[in-house]
Amino acid sequence: MAKSSKNLTLIAGGRVITAVDDYVADVLIEGEKIALIGEDLAGKHGIAADTVIDARGKLVMPGGIDAHTHMDMPFGGTTSADDFETGTRAAAHGGTTTIIDFAIQKKGSTLTEALDTWHAKAHGKTAIDYGFHMIATDLPRENLKEMRRLIHDEGVTSFKLFMAYPGVLLADDATIFRAMLTAGEEGAMTCMHAENGIVIDEIVAYALEQGFRSPKFHALTRPTQAEAEGVNRAIRLAEMAGAPVYIVHLSSHDALKRVKEARDEGIAAFAETCPQYLFLDYSHYEKENFEGAKYVMTPALRDKSNQEELWTGLRMNDLQVISTDHCPFCFKDQKTLGVDDFSKIPNGGPGVENRMSLIFNGGVKEGRIGLNRFVEITSTAAAKLFGLFPRKGTIAPGSDADIVVFDPDKKFVISAKTHHMRVDYNCYEGLEVQGAAEVVISRGKVVVDKGQYLGKPGDGQFLRRSTTQHHVKESATKRLHRYKD
Amino acid sequence: MAKSSKNLTLIAGGRVITAVDDYVADVLIEGEKIALIGEDLAGKHGIAADTVIDARGKLVMPGGIDAHTHMDMPFGGTTSADDFETGTRAAAHGGTTTIIDFAIQKKGSTLTEALDTWHAKAHGKTAIDYGFHMIATDLPRENLKEMRRLIHDEGVTSFKLFMAYPGVLLADDATIFRAMLTAGEEGAMTCMHAENGIVIDEIVAYALEQGFRSPKFHALTRPTQAEAEGVNRAIRLAEMAGAPVYIVHLSSHDALKRVKEARDEGIAAFAETCPQYLFLDYSHYEKENFEGAKYVMTPALRDKSNQEELWTGLRMNDLQVISTDHCPFCFKDQKTLGVDDFSKIPNGGPGVENRMSLIFNGGVKEGRIGLNRFVEITSTAAAKLFGLFPRKGTIAPGSDADIVVFDPDKKFVISAKTHHMRVDYNCYEGLEVQGAAEVVISRGKVVVDKGQYLGKPGDGQFLRRSTTQHHVKESATKRLHRYKD
Amino acid sequence: MAKSSKNLTLIAGGRVITAVDDYVADVLIEGEKIALIGEDLAGKHGIAADTVIDARGKLVMPGGIDAHTHMDMPFGGTTSADDFETGTRAAAHGGTTTIIDFAIQKKGSTLTEALDTWHAKAHGKTAIDYGFHMIATDLPRENLKEMRRLIHDEGVTSFKLFMAYPGVLLADDATIFRAMLTAGEEGAMTCMHAENGIVIDEIVAYALEQGFRSPKFHALTRPTQAEAEGVNRAIRLAEMAGAPVYIVHLSSHDALKRVKEARDEGIAAFAETCPQYLFLDYSHYEKENFEGAKYVMTPALRDKSNQEELWTGLRMNDLQVISTDHCPFCFKDQKTLGVDDFSKIPNGGPGVENRMSLIFNGGVKEGRIGLNRFVEITSTAAAKLFGLFPRKGTIAPGSDADIVVFDPDKKFVISAKTHHMRVDYNCYEGLEVQGAAEVVISRGKVVVDKGQYLGKPGDGQFLRRSTTQHHVKESATKRLHRYKD
Amino acid sequence: MAKSSKNLTLIAGGRVITAVDDYVADVLIEGEKIALIGEDLAGKHGIAADTVIDARGKLVMPGGIDAHTHMDMPFGGTTSADDFETGTRAAAHGGTTTIIDFAIQKKGSTLTEALDTWHAKAHGKTAIDYGFHMIATDLPRENLKEMRRLIHDEGVTSFKLFMAYPGVLLADDATIFRAMLTAGEEGAMTCMHAENGIVIDEIVAYALEQGFRSPKFHALTRPTQAEAEGVNRAIRLAEMAGAPVYIVHLSSHDALKRVKEARDEGIAAFAETCPQYLFLDYSHYEKENFEGAKYVMTPALRDKSNQEELWTGLRMNDLQVISTDHCPFCFKDQKTLGVDDFSKIPNGGPGVENRMSLIFNGGVKEGRIGLNRFVEITSTAAAKLFGLFPRKGTIAPGSDADIVVFDPDKKFVISAKTHHMRVDYNCYEGLEVQGAAEVVISRGKVVVDKGQYLGKPGDGQFLRRSTTQHHVKESATKRLHRYKD
Repeated sequence: MAKSSKNLTLIAGGRVITAVDDYVADVLIEGEKIALIGEDLAGKHGIAADTVIDARGKLVMPGGIDAHTHMDMPFGGTTSADDFETGTRAAAHGGTTTIIDFAIQKKGSTLTEALDTWHAKAHGKTAIDYGFHMIATDLPRENLKEMRRLIHDEGVTSFKLFMAYPGVLLADDATIFRAMLTAGEEGAMTCMHAENGIVIDEIVAYALEQGFRSPKFHALTRPTQAEAEGVNRAIRLAEMAGAPVYIVHLSSHDALKRVKEARDEGIAAFAETCPQYLFLDYSHYEKENFEGAKYVMTPALRDKSNQEELWTGLRMNDLQVISTDHCPFCFKDQKTLGVDDFSKIPNGGPGVENRMSLIFNGGVKEGRIGLNRFVEITSTAAAKLFGLFPRKGTIAPGSDADIVVFDPDKKFVISAKTHHMRVDYNCYEGLEVQGAAEVVISRGKVVVDKGQYLGKPGDGQFLRRSTTQHHVKESATKRLHRYKD
Repeated sequence: MAKSSKNLTLIAGGRVITAVDDYVADVLIEGEKIALIGEDLAGKHGIAADTVIDARGKLVMPGGIDAHTHMDMPFGGTTSADDFETGTRAAAHGGTTTIIDFAIQKKGSTLTEALDTWHAKAHGKTAIDYGFHMIATDLPRENLKEMRRLIHDEGVTSFKLFMAYPGVLLADDATIFRAMLTAGEEGAMTCMHAENGIVIDEIVAYALEQGFRSPKFHALTRPTQAEAEGVNRAIRLAEMAGAPVYIVHLSSHDALKRVKEARDEGIAAFAETCPQYLFLDYSHYEKENFEGAKYVMTPALRDKSNQEELWTGLRMNDLQVISTDHCPFCFKDQKTLGVDDFSKIPNGGPGVENRMSLIFNGGVKEGRIGLNRFVEITSTAAAKLFGLFPRKGTIAPGSDADIVVFDPDKKFVISAKTHHMRVDYNCYEGLEVQGAAEVVISRGKVVVDKGQYLGKPGDGQFLRRSTTQHHVKESATKRLHRYKD
Repeated sequence: MAKSSKNLTLIAGGRVITAVDDYVADVLIEGEKIALIGEDLAGKHGIAADTVIDARGKLVMPGGIDAHTHMDMPFGGTTSADDFETGTRAAAHGGTTTIIDFAIQKKGSTLTEALDTWHAKAHGKTAIDYGFHMIATDLPRENLKEMRRLIHDEGVTSFKLFMAYPGVLLADDATIFRAMLTAGEEGAMTCMHAENGIVIDEIVAYALEQGFRSPKFHALTRPTQAEAEGVNRAIRLAEMAGAPVYIVHLSSHDALKRVKEARDEGIAAFAETCPQYLFLDYSHYEKENFEGAKYVMTPALRDKSNQEELWTGLRMNDLQVISTDHCPFCFKDQKTLGVDDFSKIPNGGPGVENRMSLIFNGGVKEGRIGLNRFVEITSTAAAKLFGLFPRKGTIAPGSDADIVVFDPDKKFVISAKTHHMRVDYNCYEGLEVQGAAEVVISRGKVVVDKGQYLGKPGDGQFLRRSTTQHHVKESATKRLHRYKD
Repeated sequence: MAKSSKNLTLIAGGRVITAVDDYVADVLIEGEKIALIGEDLAGKHGIAADTVIDARGKLVMPGGIDAHTHMDMPFGGTTSADDFETGTRAAAHGGTTTIIDFAIQKKGSTLTEALDTWHAKAHGKTAIDYGFHMIATDLPRENLKEMRRLIHDEGVTSFKLFMAYPGVLLADDATIFRAMLTAGEEGAMTCMHAENGIVIDEIVAYALEQGFRSPKFHALTRPTQAEAEGVNRAIRLAEMAGAPVYIVHLSSHDALKRVKEARDEGIAAFAETCPQYLFLDYSHYEKENFEGAKYVMTPALRDKSNQEELWTGLRMNDLQVISTDHCPFCFKDQKTLGVDDFSKIPNGGPGVENRMSLIFNGGVKEGRIGLNRFVEITSTAAAKLFGLFPRKGTIAPGSDADIVVFDPDKKFVISAKTHHMRVDYNCYEGLEVQGAAEVVISRGKVVVDKGQYLGKPGDGQFLRRSTTQHHVKESATKRLHRYKD
């Protein structure tokens, strides 16, 4: 064949894994896209690539999508330690080629202002492609038009609302319902931090009154029922709004049961969990020397018994996505803000770099999920739910060449000493895991090769995401029209 | 025997039914109390009564307790049509010998002021005994002390909170949780109007914008999911608060499922339903000439399919109590306030007089429940839940002689023309029912005899109710103490 | 009053507890029946009793009903150690005044022969009243007529069928369904040993092949799923047969869930559990020196986590009855038949004497249930389910004077050295319990007074039981007639 | 490129749909396999194919897999009307390129004999590839070795057992459990006809006694609870056996609930439904002139309300597969065997040809499922569950070129006059559907082109299927070893 004027990269001889397929073949990348898939493309079809990556014995998978990160995010008087440069570089090292971060509407200001602010934070800095969910805190009826504009003109097709953090981020049920109605009409997704923060704040106030101030009380003041109640409320509001709903960072069996029952009813309820809820537990809060503060995140780590229930949810598709809720704060200077009061510890932890290896190790290697499901929960499902598919999330002709060549046998020890996240600790310090990204390709460009970062800030582009359609019930408002006199 | 100085009344030869027993015997009343129960008290034991009531062929049952009435209640610029005189007299006619009405705290004023106001409304007027639940709308932490005072000093041991009617009666989740925590500690009951009124108000606003204004839109803007969501939230807040909870006027299968699942978990969740949800349905709203307004009450009447589910709940004890939510407004002049706008129709309907006959007819006669269960749901369960037992709710030595001699064979037609409630329509107009109170005794005094009212205003006394104990989980706040460093 | 020619016994000043009531009063017994209940019968009403029992400070409760015992029962080549004389005497000591034992149809012989055999075993021997359930093993269509005869002419209104013990007692699903259809038509109850014995026997055979022969393998070869499967099957067959069903000796949370879900649907499914499943657990099988054999019974003891779930079931009325499944075999000579093979250990254990005190201690004293519920689960519910009410199971005029004066404060240590059952060990050896029967009255006669047995063999009478009615679905066979062409 | 010596077929410009992907590309077939996938293979890569199929505007999907057919099957004294030649040809016309039929072990003869018999029926006759499930009716322990041999040496990796048809096909629970234990150990699948046939036969016998003989009584004697009970039993036996289970022809919501609850627990329970349960209902049995007999199949058609529940199950993956249970009997001469007795009507109906179009029309076109899910339920899931993946069930390099070029816009009317099945009626006679197979390719060969059959008997090959692995609980037997003394 005639050599294309475009740059050709051949990934040769790997075992290609998508959310459904599993075959050995060559994958040819032409520029930024996947062009051709077949056996022995060079030998049988005379393909002459500029670059050949030997993937024999390796897995060739869609690059990871982390649908929940918080780079450069202000929180409680400080800012998350990774910015869009350091955070996305760390993500790339771990085999993740797309993140969806969150722009945050300040109460009283517009969604557009929030989007502008976050574009400014990210533009020209990222190692990989990125999108934004919009955190809406203030949605009077007159602003729903702006919401629609973001969906259709700005590629921001998902909105997150909080049932937690009263007075800061919390949206009341009227706001949530309005957002869901609009999202349902326009093909957008509503993401919910589903935890009854109002009740939690009552318990927190009581704890502080009683002088209970150490990090473990962060967890003890947040019962799983508060999460389960929020999840149920979110789902039922969505049901009435005729809209799909996506529960972020689901952490407990109590909450998962609400998702299961909704899905059993055919309701378009989706949920993600995070590695911390699969591998860490309440006992970490009891570490001495304030080390428990490293694990202060919301929802809190739960009793260990929840972990296998979450894995069951992942296996049976009651949980669809693994994200990280990456939101690191350094132990020194940041976490210590709460040394005398757990409620002042910045909430969040690092994770964007370790997700793929943690899930491969704990999921695939330990026999809890298969390879196809690994791809689905780390990449494909998020792409489909958030309007990135088929551009992202698969290996197919025409898709972006976001590919990770993954060594399923490589073992390494997770440590803050070697990780690339800009934070002074790692929640999994010392844990040996099997499975690591060897070559990471973002839109056709190799950005990481055997641990070597080859990219530069600005390689990543903003992703205008599409709307999506789900099978939902008729909304309570649409239904009225059928009864019109 | 020597004749007691007290007045003796003998109910002779009736079939005595309690929530568990069923036997033929004489019941001797001495003054206000039940003194003696046995066979042939006159013949075998020489009892000479002042009054003998021949109850042969009749049922002798504890007087009915209606745990949910609203006499003389301001609502939407008008006042419920029955006051404590007319309403309790009508209740007595129907075989009900105790009501528990509601005092309403105005936002900004105290619980005590509310109680005083309601004492003034009722004192000296009632035909039968009465207690008050307290509707709390405003419970900052500093007022919890007053709540405790009402429980222990005033005999007001139940508190009702609203998830509906934002801006008027709605209490936020913090208020609800605080009230439940306090109630749980003190042995009081929290009653919940469990319906997400915030979402409902959004739907109502939409409906009005669209010009949907007829009475049926009252129902169509209140999906059963909004009730079920509220029920779940109420139960889960109670679970975290370590407190029992009582759902008022549960109307739908969706909501009932939430009670069932909680009870399956062993949670102290209780619920009442009302005759209107068992016998009436959505189709009534479609009546012509604005007649649908007669059925405007909250929750709204549901699709007919809910009715048998509620009966199942009553039979299996997932619903414990039948109350009426008696809150009548005349069709003329009152209901017509909303002739152009369903949201302006005063919410509520009459029922206190018809409850016992309706439930006997639809329950016992139609084979859905037995006689013991009839007594339990119309009287005993409410007495036990609301701190009136064993004074009320049973036929046993030492209990108040609140007794109804009930004719299980008597048939009559319900009609506004003959009912004693002060309201110009009856929801069951024209319905023939079987089973009627023949003689009604309140604290030893015959107040109704074959349809003749023999009492006078002020016969009834205020009931200082006791606290109660339930098997509940440890509250989230108590639990913290176990983890104290 | 004129003294009756009948013997009068006055129980004075006790706290009378029924399944619903709780009051202090005197109870007058005339002959075998309860005649009069009231305050101060001697003082105020001049009652002069032949015998006065001072019950001040004591509980006066309906005598216990143990709905599941196996006296003098052949099993695996031996016979249960208590006969009807020793077993019922022991029952009386514990406060139980009625047992319902089981007659067993041999395959190939008739139900009537079985009944005759058991009448011969019991007649003239018992200390207290007794009835028989009939264990049916063989019910071809032509024998259903005999089943009807037992119900209507012999007072045998409950039938037990086994899903366990293939080749011995197991009835196939056709037999079970036929029995249920007939029972449903005639107002009889079907009791089910609901455990998939066919699958269990496969596991047992495997265990023996592998040389797993110690007592604990009795439990390990009987998974809770085998019980839960049987319970579900029993319930669903009953649903199709339009009949109520009563699960005997329910032992596990898995099984209980099936009862809960059926009851949530309104199905007339009932179940008993036994003290051994509330207080003992799997770990007892691991006792040394073959002592685990003492606990070999079917179903087997379960993991401890099941216990609180069963208590929840008792509290919420998903379990209605506590029986003992009393079927003792001496450790010496009997249990040792299986010293080399767990499958040869006679199945069963003693318990009839200890039931009331165990449940009072573990239930009432430890705060899991109240006094009314104690009476209901130890007496009233069984009386109602098995056609003995109101003759048994309550304290009301006209009922049999089967009464226990119970000391709620008395503590004692359970021991084979002091118990009255004819068996050489006690499952609760050394356990101190609070609450004991002080005076036990059977049909008006004091049979036990402070530990002294005052009765004689033959005091007890056979109880012809009534049929009962339950709210059930239309049977699959009746339904056909509605579709007749 | 150099032209391969193998035959090359190019499917050009179609929209390729797999269970996860959706892209426009060319697919190159080399011999029997898919070789290359990419854009514009001829233009950009110089591929010169022998045959070019223009698929622009068409869907290019994996050929359908019908996992449940009965060709040439003896039943009730007659034989299903399609043999392997006519039946597979009809399948090909409909877009199905693989069937899995059933060999049937006669009681008393071996599995191997059954397999030989079915090989003889099919060999050299089929238009498309085929496999066999083995119906086991008789599995004493000594025959489990033969079961293992079939799995590992004969490519028969799935076994079907019946809870229905006592005396003919029914396997008792011991047989089922043994089969499951063995299947679980060896990586085979157990398929269950899960319906309590023993109870059903009791109801049937009653119906016939009463003279209820018309076709509708086929349905009326088979309550959904009998199916749900069987499904639960099958699942729980599988759970104890540590094995996956696959419920065939699930027909009702009652049964589906059992699958849902098991899957919620993480149990490896799978189920198929069939077009007849999605599109037909009980009312068809009431057709006049014995026409109801056309719909006599087992399970019976259910009330219409079940249909949307089954669709929900398909959408949410509680049902994984659509098969047909194709088992046609001519109305004339065959169905009429039961003209006087519904129980003599041969059970079964035609469907293999219409499945893909029916599901496309009712699923995709009517908005109940998307294209990916269409492929998954008609092809991919069956391939994965039954050891055919990735050979069948996807479009990927190396997979068999079993491809259907499907016209999503083509409308046609289903009719016995035009269908290719050898049966004199069609259950969907007169129904217009949208969506039809245009070109059907089996292992690289075009067998149907625009309605023209181009193949010949014997084109199809027997498929030796692989074992599969599922995440299951430890079996009850393996578990014993952990407790070994």
